[in-house]
Amino acid sequence: MAKSLTLLATIALVFLTTVQAADPDLVSDFAVPDGVDESKLDGVFFTYTGLRGGAPSNNGLGRKTVTVRDFPALNGMGVSMELLEFAPGAVNVPHTHPRGGEIFFVVEGALTVGTTDTNGKLYKNVLQKGDVFVFPKGLPHYQANFDKTNKATVVSAFGSSNAGTVSLPKNLFGSNIPNQVLTKAFKISADTLQQLND
Amino acid sequence: MAKSLTLLATIALVFLTTVQAADPDLVSDFAVPDGVDESKLDGVFFTYTGLRGGAPSNNGLGRKTVTVRDFPALNGMGVSMELLEFAPGAVNVPHTHPRGGEIFFVVEGALTVGTTDTNGKLYKNVLQKGDVFVFPKGLPHYQANFDKTNKATVVSAFGSSNAGTVSLPKNLFGSNIPNQVLTKAFKISADTLQQLND
Amino acid sequence: MAKSLTLLATIALVFLTTVQAADPDLVSDFAVPDGVDESKLDGVFFTYTGLRGGAPSNNGLGRKTVTVRDFPALNGMGVSMELLEFAPGAVNVPHTHPRGGEIFFVVEGALTVGTTDTNGKLYKNVLQKGDVFVFPKGLPHYQANFDKTNKATVVSAFGSSNAGTVSLPKNLFGSNIPNQVLTKAFKISADTLQQLND
Amino acid sequence: MAKSLTLLATIALVFLTTVQAADPDLVSDFAVPDGVDESKLDGVFFTYTGLRGGAPSNNGLGRKTVTVRDFPALNGMGVSMELLEFAPGAVNVPHTHPRGGEIFFVVEGALTVGTTDTNGKLYKNVLQKGDVFVFPKGLPHYQANFDKTNKATVVSAFGSSNAGTVSLPKNLFGSNIPNQVLTKAFKISADTLQQLND
Amino acid sequence: MAKSLTLLATIALVFLTTVQAADPDLVSDFAVPDGVDESKLDGVFFTYTGLRGGAPSNNGLGRKTVTVRDFPALNGMGVSMELLEFAPGAVNVPHTHPRGGEIFFVVEGALTVGTTDTNGKLYKNVLQKGDVFVFPKGLPHYQANFDKTNKATVVSAFGSSNAGTVSLPKNLFGSNIPNQVLTKAFKISADTLQQLND
Amino acid sequence: MAKSLTLLATIALVFLTTVQAADPDLVSDFAVPDGVDESKLDGVFFTYTGLRGGAPSNNGLGRKTVTVRDFPALNGMGVSMELLEFAPGAVNVPHTHPRGGEIFFVVEGALTVGTTDTNGKLYKNVLQKGDVFVFPKGLPHYQANFDKTNKATVVSAFGSSNAGTVSLPKNLFGSNIPNQVLTKAFKISADTLQQLND
Repeated sequence: MAKSLTLLATIALVFLTTVQAADPDLVSDFAVPDGVDESKLDGVFFTYTGLRGGAPSNNGLGRKTVTVRDFPALNGMGVSMELLEFAPGAVNVPHTHPRGGEIFFVVEGALTVGTTDTNGKLYKNVLQKGDVFVFPKGLPHYQANFDKTNKATVVSAFGSSNAGTVSLPKNLFGSNIPNQVLTKAFKISADTLQQLND
Repeated sequence: MAKSLTLLATIALVFLTTVQAADPDLVSDFAVPDGVDESKLDGVFFTYTGLRGGAPSNNGLGRKTVTVRDFPALNGMGVSMELLEFAPGAVNVPHTHPRGGEIFFVVEGALTVGTTDTNGKLYKNVLQKGDVFVFPKGLPHYQANFDKTNKATVVSAFGSSNAGTVSLPKNLFGSNIPNQVLTKAFKISADTLQQLND
Repeated sequence: MAKSLTLLATIALVFLTTVQAADPDLVSDFAVPDGVDESKLDGVFFTYTGLRGGAPSNNGLGRKTVTVRDFPALNGMGVSMELLEFAPGAVNVPHTHPRGGEIFFVVEGALTVGTTDTNGKLYKNVLQKGDVFVFPKGLPHYQANFDKTNKATVVSAFGSSNAGTVSLPKNLFGSNIPNQVLTKAFKISADTLQQLND
Repeated sequence: MAKSLTLLATIALVFLTTVQAADPDLVSDFAVPDGVDESKLDGVFFTYTGLRGGAPSNNGLGRKTVTVRDFPALNGMGVSMELLEFAPGAVNVPHTHPRGGEIFFVVEGALTVGTTDTNGKLYKNVLQKGDVFVFPKGLPHYQANFDKTNKATVVSAFGSSNAGTVSLPKNLFGSNIPNQVLTKAFKISADTLQQLND
Repeated sequence: MAKSLTLLATIALVFLTTVQAADPDLVSDFAVPDGVDESKLDGVFFTYTGLRGGAPSNNGLGRKTVTVRDFPALNGMGVSMELLEFAPGAVNVPHTHPRGGEIFFVVEGALTVGTTDTNGKLYKNVLQKGDVFVFPKGLPHYQANFDKTNKATVVSAFGSSNAGTVSLPKNLFGSNIPNQVLTKAFKISADTLQQLND
Repeated sequence: MAKSLTLLATIALVFLTTVQAADPDLVSDFAVPDGVDESKLDGVFFTYTGLRGGAPSNNGLGRKTVTVRDFPALNGMGVSMELLEFAPGAVNVPHTHPRGGEIFFVVEGALTVGTTDTNGKLYKNVLQKGDVFVFPKGLPHYQANFDKTNKATVVSAFGSSNAGTVSLPKNLFGSNIPNQVLTKAFKISADTLQQLND
């Protein structure tokens, strides 16, 4: 019996992984998670409350994302959402979304934004309340609130139910890439690298 | 020369149609519109200002949508956005989005929402500020602000750069579908149909 | 042991759901259903006999559909089929297919057909034997046999292994959408709505 | 002027090629062909009459296909159709459809069918009126009417708006593949090859 | 207990099938195989050593393929690879890849190659070291080393994590397709067919 | 006349952009470039010679890529290729491919490789001749030849006809991202940033 429960747990875990591994064209109205009785589903299944309260920023950047990992009704919908709150001076560090383009809507405040392309060219702008910006799939981009007194808030959406976020500072200088690679790649001394890795 | 200009105009029109006909996987960083010199593009290309001022509702439903038709930087991104403002009592009539699922975020106020499935089963809920709801691709759904004093505002996103909206009242009773079809389909008299068509 | 069987049944149910949840690009010749021994498969696996006998109509509309739900060999093929038989006067009520465009072939008889688009514009025609019509993905459409003596028969195919069908009369007036929403949406009185809901 | 017309003709040709080059997810209700005024489209655009009269077989195999090449309303629908008529004894020679799986419906008569897989295993069956068979994407298959007196008729559909057909006898022995390749590949003498090439 | 193990084995088998059945857009960084603990994965998971030693040819054709079946890290990547070694005189017999186009790179030596299209037209060329050739998805093609003394080696890649290979000689004359079909299809006598089937 | 030529040139340019903007499912055997007469195409169209001579490295990293931009026969094939030659000590700096996963095959020599994921976890390995490694779509990765005397050569393929490459050093410190963003993002002084930007 205990073994059976363990087995069941293993299977459940495994199913979750499976459910979250793909954003296919659906061939059903929506994707019923494994082990769930479809006939008992109601509107609660299509509701996510984890964004209540917004994305409080604590003097920096606040961010809350809803993806298929936490909200299975998104499975196969090819879309997800993020809330961002920028305190004055806050920066959303250069990052990429490896699996989706982003449409970025400024609900409140003003933001300086930019994206680079595969030629290293920078496309930047200053957005005001009500403006929309597109960050193409997989390209590095950043946002910053250079206003000294007013915060900025954003609702963003992605063309994937889990677009993912690669923080470039963290991935480059916080992930144990060999020092030999980094000093050569960034043409810096070991001392300078040390400051980046700290 | 005049002819050449006409030809050019025809071509330009035709290109626009082509550009807006497909949401494919990109094989470039972004889709440069036909006739545009990529080297001259800057951040303005990725910016859309048509949502400034929100979606004022005039005592009913306000709605503003940004799709690839008006904002070509969305081409191939597989995502688009809509702002909605519900005055007290306002209803977003039953409709479908034929080309994309919808993630619906309540920025302010409270909304009664529901979606049906291909069995005609209704999934409904009452959403409060900060709640998210998913309307699966192609399924009929509605939203209503039953509050008598407070408006509600929403930011929605779709898993297509142009998901489309089919208003069901307008398409069923405002599009010249033959009366014989409608009276039979809805099992109503010609008199009742007349009220619906008006 | 009984528990194991229950477990097995649960798993089987769950697998079925999984198998039917997606129409992806295959990376095998075909999709072997979970729990099935591929080496024992023969031509029977690729054969479906549920359409034998056609779609008898009983003085109205007869309809039989074959999708991946009943015929797993369709998994990943992105196509499915439907037989329709229209008795004289029969109407296929306005409906949508949320997950696939439809190619509609008149085997016998004549049919009046129409589809609307997202602007509410109606595109209609009268088809005769041998004619083909396309109903684009997700758009509302109908067919009717206005002939008083001859039936009509149709073979239709969809660009999805399970395109789904949303009957608009049933989904709008038979699914418990709140009366407040419907009276407002269709600009009708409660009395008129009552006739529609009946 | 003459040059302009030539230019226009070249462009038109080129557009046709473009329109027919891809079966993408649509971001419009349907794909308006280049140069066509959408506001003037009506139900005729969605109608194809080229299959009227069926696919008469002349004592052999009759075949008529409707694809996006001849019927632009299919663009982006991911589905197409074929009519087949098998006289007694007729064979549809081994072939593949490189861009789509096939769902094959026997309207009348009986057929012997088979498909192989990438292991060279054959899956075959004898179909009767009303039966459906699936030929997976890209796999070699054949159909034959072994009945001595009755013809057989078929409506088939594909999961692509232009699945394509590769006749294997014609492509292998009628396409000038070097004899050295063919004698080695099929382990036959030059004399035997000569019989095949004739 | 024994039963439980059997059950577990069945499930494991079934999972494998599931994992290998689809090449979808990922909604995770990579696809963790069912039953595997993601936190324990390291670089070994992304490494495949089965191509070490190349594809020795033994006087004929050597071929080694790496697909998602043997290398699960390829799941969802939409790409796979093949090594080929052609001894002098070796022929890669006419074949198709039902699920992917091929990019073919000659590392060493010279090769005569050709592909046919759906019209039976042959496109051929003689490639030298460093040349690249494209074999479009699903179309029959061959390669041959007509050099009498030098071998040729190739690295090929496919636009699918398991494109599959259909050997046309084997599938046509080695798969028990009825003789009646083959003699009629290839317009040959039973005697000639016998030579082909041997 | 001169104007017509200019027009033609403009159109040609525009077509090229269009052709290179998407990697869709084909609905033709291959994509004929706009303005090209399909009937005159032969094997040369499917051949690319730009990789002859390999990717000489000049004491550093040599790299040659073939994509749909230079080789239109790749259009719609969903695959492309790259040759890499690492002199002793050479590093391929951290980079991403925004539109495709990579399968990396070591033809000669040994390489130290690594990829990070969206959690910043590093997956690394040391590859020897004949080894294959997968770099998932959009994730940062690097390769380095730490051998002091032997070079290493690689053939890589991508699951896109133009996966793109984002060099992270160049995009972060060579693209005019505002200093305020970079010093804050990398938690470094203006002096340190100066060293990185140089």
